[in-house]
Amino acid sequence: MTVIATGNQANGHSSELSKKPATTSKVASPGDEQLVLNTIRCLAADLCQQYKGGHPGTVMGAAAIGVALWRYEMRYNPANPDWFNRDRFVLSAGHACLFQYLFLHFSGYEAWTLDQIKMYHSPATKGSMAAGHPEIEYPGIEVTTGPLGQGISNAVGMAIAAKQLAATYNRDDLKVIDNKIWCFTGDGCLQEGVGQESISLAGHLGLDNLILVYDNNRVTVDGSIDNCFTEDTSSKLVAQGWHVVDVYDGSNDLAAILEGFDKAKQLKGKPVLVNIRTVIGYSSRKANTGPAHGQALGDDEVAYVKQQLGFDPQAKFVIPSQVYEYFSETKRKGADAEEEWNTLLEQYKARYPDQHTELTRRMKGQWAAPGEDWQALLPSKSALPQEAQPTRKSSGIVVQALVPKYNSFVAGSADLLESTFVSFNDQIEFQKPDSGLGDYSGRQIRYGIREFAMVGLGNGIAAYQKGMFIPIMSTFFQFWIYAAPAARMAALQKLRFIGIATHDSIGIGEDGPTHQPIALASFYRSLPNINLIRPADAEECMGMWTLALDDDLSADTPSIFALSRQPVPLLPGTDRTKVQRGAYIVQGEDVPDGEVELTIIATGAEVSRAIETVKLLKSIGNGNEEEKLKVRVVSMPSQRHFDAQPKEYRDSVLGRGTKSSPKNLVVAIEAWSSYGWAKYAHASLSMHTFGHSAPQQQLYKYFGFEPTNMATKIDEFVSKWRGLGRVPGLGEFEELLLGYAGH
Amino acid sequence: MTVIATGNQANGHSSELSKKPATTSKVASPGDEQLVLNTIRCLAADLCQQYKGGHPGTVMGAAAIGVALWRYEMRYNPANPDWFNRDRFVLSAGHACLFQYLFLHFSGYEAWTLDQIKMYHSPATKGSMAAGHPEIEYPGIEVTTGPLGQGISNAVGMAIAAKQLAATYNRDDLKVIDNKIWCFTGDGCLQEGVGQESISLAGHLGLDNLILVYDNNRVTVDGSIDNCFTEDTSSKLVAQGWHVVDVYDGSNDLAAILEGFDKAKQLKGKPVLVNIRTVIGYSSRKANTGPAHGQALGDDEVAYVKQQLGFDPQAKFVIPSQVYEYFSETKRKGADAEEEWNTLLEQYKARYPDQHTELTRRMKGQWAAPGEDWQALLPSKSALPQEAQPTRKSSGIVVQALVPKYNSFVAGSADLLESTFVSFNDQIEFQKPDSGLGDYSGRQIRYGIREFAMVGLGNGIAAYQKGMFIPIMSTFFQFWIYAAPAARMAALQKLRFIGIATHDSIGIGEDGPTHQPIALASFYRSLPNINLIRPADAEECMGMWTLALDDDLSADTPSIFALSRQPVPLLPGTDRTKVQRGAYIVQGEDVPDGEVELTIIATGAEVSRAIETVKLLKSIGNGNEEEKLKVRVVSMPSQRHFDAQPKEYRDSVLGRGTKSSPKNLVVAIEAWSSYGWAKYAHASLSMHTFGHSAPQQQLYKYFGFEPTNMATKIDEFVSKWRGLGRVPGLGEFEELLLGYAGH
Repeated sequence: MTVIATGNQANGHSSELSKKPATTSKVASPGDEQLVLNTIRCLAADLCQQYKGGHPGTVMGAAAIGVALWRYEMRYNPANPDWFNRDRFVLSAGHACLFQYLFLHFSGYEAWTLDQIKMYHSPATKGSMAAGHPEIEYPGIEVTTGPLGQGISNAVGMAIAAKQLAATYNRDDLKVIDNKIWCFTGDGCLQEGVGQESISLAGHLGLDNLILVYDNNRVTVDGSIDNCFTEDTSSKLVAQGWHVVDVYDGSNDLAAILEGFDKAKQLKGKPVLVNIRTVIGYSSRKANTGPAHGQALGDDEVAYVKQQLGFDPQAKFVIPSQVYEYFSETKRKGADAEEEWNTLLEQYKARYPDQHTELTRRMKGQWAAPGEDWQALLPSKSALPQEAQPTRKSSGIVVQALVPKYNSFVAGSADLLESTFVSFNDQIEFQKPDSGLGDYSGRQIRYGIREFAMVGLGNGIAAYQKGMFIPIMSTFFQFWIYAAPAARMAALQKLRFIGIATHDSIGIGEDGPTHQPIALASFYRSLPNINLIRPADAEECMGMWTLALDDDLSADTPSIFALSRQPVPLLPGTDRTKVQRGAYIVQGEDVPDGEVELTIIATGAEVSRAIETVKLLKSIGNGNEEEKLKVRVVSMPSQRHFDAQPKEYRDSVLGRGTKSSPKNLVVAIEAWSSYGWAKYAHASLSMHTFGHSAPQQQLYKYFGFEPTNMATKIDEFVSKWRGLGRVPGLGEFEELLLGYAGH
Repeated sequence: MTVIATGNQANGHSSELSKKPATTSKVASPGDEQLVLNTIRCLAADLCQQYKGGHPGTVMGAAAIGVALWRYEMRYNPANPDWFNRDRFVLSAGHACLFQYLFLHFSGYEAWTLDQIKMYHSPATKGSMAAGHPEIEYPGIEVTTGPLGQGISNAVGMAIAAKQLAATYNRDDLKVIDNKIWCFTGDGCLQEGVGQESISLAGHLGLDNLILVYDNNRVTVDGSIDNCFTEDTSSKLVAQGWHVVDVYDGSNDLAAILEGFDKAKQLKGKPVLVNIRTVIGYSSRKANTGPAHGQALGDDEVAYVKQQLGFDPQAKFVIPSQVYEYFSETKRKGADAEEEWNTLLEQYKARYPDQHTELTRRMKGQWAAPGEDWQALLPSKSALPQEAQPTRKSSGIVVQALVPKYNSFVAGSADLLESTFVSFNDQIEFQKPDSGLGDYSGRQIRYGIREFAMVGLGNGIAAYQKGMFIPIMSTFFQFWIYAAPAARMAALQKLRFIGIATHDSIGIGEDGPTHQPIALASFYRSLPNINLIRPADAEECMGMWTLALDDDLSADTPSIFALSRQPVPLLPGTDRTKVQRGAYIVQGEDVPDGEVELTIIATGAEVSRAIETVKLLKSIGNGNEEEKLKVRVVSMPSQRHFDAQPKEYRDSVLGRGTKSSPKNLVVAIEAWSSYGWAKYAHASLSMHTFGHSAPQQQLYKYFGFEPTNMATKIDEFVSKWRGLGRVPGLGEFEELLLGYAGH
């Protein structure tokens, strides 16, 4: 075999060939390989230069890694990018997307034509798949990456998915799942905390189907990582339970890379880091500098690179025919691999028909069989506990009812399994078999105190094969702020997870303001394509789960359930079927539309307080029952779903009726910030500070959410606006608890 | 010296004494020490049991660590908790707050009476300082902790602050800053990514004034960390550039702890991990279990513990007089230390009067001298660049004008120094002196690709001595979602930082939806006590900096500036002095209040687009200039500041005038989610998806923000509501670009 152009790493523009090492004979056609690498380097330079932007350096430095992966090491079928038993490749360093696009092109993914790749930095809005970061929608892209560190977490999640499936479905005589997960990381992803968290957990779990390919070029946007990142990554990962394989000249020594990857595939019991030293911007004079990372090289430098590599400095996008020839085997290899696997699956069907049925159903993204009445497994309202209980506990009823029964669910927590009610009966923990704690068939995952990685892993589990898994993940609602960057990526990628977010307000009590999430809901309500649902009671908990698990409603949408620590009563007016409308009348439906004079909207644990408050309102009858306001109470578990309803429905719930100028006053009650409520209410009773440390009943009182106080505030509000003879207009939204501090 | 009750670590309830090791003779009165530890253990049990909640286990297991710290190792003056040259103690494991409260009590902090500590789990709202997590407001608490991992980042920030001050002010003959930073961490903080990021950077920076005290009890809420966290922490930190000192029986062996700390204080060139194995819940039968971590022990078990430790099982909150006696030296030692330092400072004043003046001014929290006209250093509007330029670049004008001149500023970036314009002329990098890259006097910090740690460190820098530093920290706005948990803690703690958040919308262009922050503003707008400011042009950039640096307005408030990647013109109507009002009229002020018919509110880069749009509006005149609507354009750089204005001002800006039923229509334009706009506008032109990868001009067009399209949409909207003869009411907010995808 051959080493493909060694030379001065610092400059990276020597072209002398070194001796072929004796260690491997896998690499064929040495001359062609040099040409392949050089072609890819020139293409990267051209692609960035055409629009004077982008990330050329990693492609140029890591071209040999790409060759090793797509030409030799990875198993995939370019004709069927979604073939089930393929290796997964995650480009955690998403900005280096050209690296992936070019190798998809050469490996035979038909959608990835050169014309398509030349649309890099052209409008994706006009049909370019060559987005600035890889996007999950396109063939051969397993997951959308870019926000650094998250790709590592996605890859660890995929490794968990593959291990779990293998342990569930493989039999000694038939291994229908035996693929590898490859993750390509740069220096940036290894600096990010989420990368660290994921690496730590992967080491603990011993995921030996995971290979982390470290493009160790030691340069980021701001230049050398000697400025800020000087730890010994290999030693560190050894301390974290990883195998480490070192490769010292990854911009040239294809043989060593292949040897490293071969070794990585054989190593057992631990995930493997292949630490490959490369030269960013290899073959340019800008090699080893920040500009090579994230800028086009400039016309002169592109010409220089081509000259160095034996290409015509004036010609652009040149691909010698030998390059395609070099990759010509990949299609056939892929087709053979899939065909072989299809044969295996047929044998599996014959020997293990039940498992085959479930596996193939799940491969189609069906967690339950079509038409199966899984809703019937949830207790009816009358069968729910009739005494007050926390919604976190009510949510747990569904976990217990569904999770043990359906293999698609994997339920875990960031160290709060019990208090978030995601543990379930007869569970097996997902742990390495020799740990004595569980095995890989387990569907209960202990993520550790790593909220961000938890959700990043969940995204990887969900992305492994769309719809095959529904990860359930839990922590306190406050700590969904740690996980927010990953939750956003789920919504962007249309990946379904169930997020359990308990202790969802000042109701957490004594833990104090650090743990009281009064602003976070605004983020999740503002984010496209995510269900933030805050149920009023156990009945709405049934509805929230139904909404989140209904394939018609939420197959492409993650959900977060904001749940109470404290008990709430089961309310007469709640209705699980109405949760998916976002809001509905829980009390006062007998008041005709258009005659409503006061509507109180509340969410979650505040709905029962709203109902108590109505009993205490003096408005306006001064004790005279007949003169009292006609009041409705609305539960609004999801603003987003309410917004999606027809106007007539929304007008009815808000008490507008069909009037163009209704006299109905609307007040919202929620123990979070008032932000966003002006869309639905004229006034709100909300939180204005970060909260306090105190028992929850005390806090509700202190911040003004006692029904007696709320009734007074609402009476005053109503009386004021009745006096004015109109309802508040734009710019007149009032916060009725502003400045209030408990009496 | 003595070891204080060794025995069976797993049960932890033996009381046999071991031999006094020869290694140290520092510890006095062996009998008393046993009593001290046992008293603290019983107190922890009692304090949690009284309200049946809280975290007893760490206090019981780590009591000897507390004794070592407060009785022997740390330098502080309980009579003056804010003495400048004190050691800083950060309880990263904030849930173990009783640990800190009890030692503050015994060490002589007068505010921390036993009665005060007995208010643990009583209402903070009724004057308890013993909140469920330590809160910065109270004496002896350096920083509010609780959200795990962040305390480590705060401590690293404090170590940076101390190093920077020492390098700036110390002279060979006079070291006025020579303290240590102690951070107490449990297993949880070490699992969190932000802890990892901070540890990595601390190792790189060689912060040998930082001692990380690891209470290695291997138990969290969900039980043994063997379930999820099995890495070799000591080896890992060695790989990250730390010294490591091991202590093997930290629940008993005070001598070994002291020896470890002494060693840690002497080690040079690197931060030090003191890895101390302890037994959580030591002396209870629940030792080494999850319940010992986060639950009261139960009456029976409390009695059992007391019996084991030689206390009356029935008596509560017992403190033998010997315990106070044991700590009796701490007050005197503290007073002596401060007095000695005061003498030193007097000498410093005599020899280095200029440095003394600056140092003591900064100690008072004054970054500029009182009355100093620092605003005059900012260019006037006519002196600003008159051509269009990105607001990120305009912001950089202020960085250049102020940062080099004032030592209070430390400016850094998460690997985006240049593109966020926080680098400044003649800067020295904050780096360890032997790195060849800078030295500790540097005020330019390279945080690496660690956004969360960056802001956590910034909080530590800001908390080191309130007002002494103003950290400036930068990354793309999208990645302020990684940093959000720390930014929230700054707002909660009233710590001022300046957050530079560039590339603030779809204007980032080709990087695509992963990098386009369309929902994040809602979180920051919803959060109390943070200035999220989005300036329209260079002039507003001057106003935003003035607002953020004005001590009267923002001394207790962090700011985040959302800045454009793309150029925006300098607008005739902008006015720096009005930024602090949150919103103001930039065009159409000649239209009298109350006669306004259409108000267009925009923010940031969209303000100039709004002005272009107005030129194209046909409403309602159909080309007849005289019949055209009376239009105003409002720039709203900060919703929060606008909300704080008097109603008359707000009504005027929104075009209500004094009318109770104004006919003025209000439309908002912002390339973020519409969430929150219904409070200020009847309709908005907003983002409804995550964005796309494309050049920014293309994206603005694709998503409907071209002035021609916006004019059409607004004309339609106006014409519809003019036809109806009224303005939209509650529930009628319209998103004018909903469903729009560029033509």
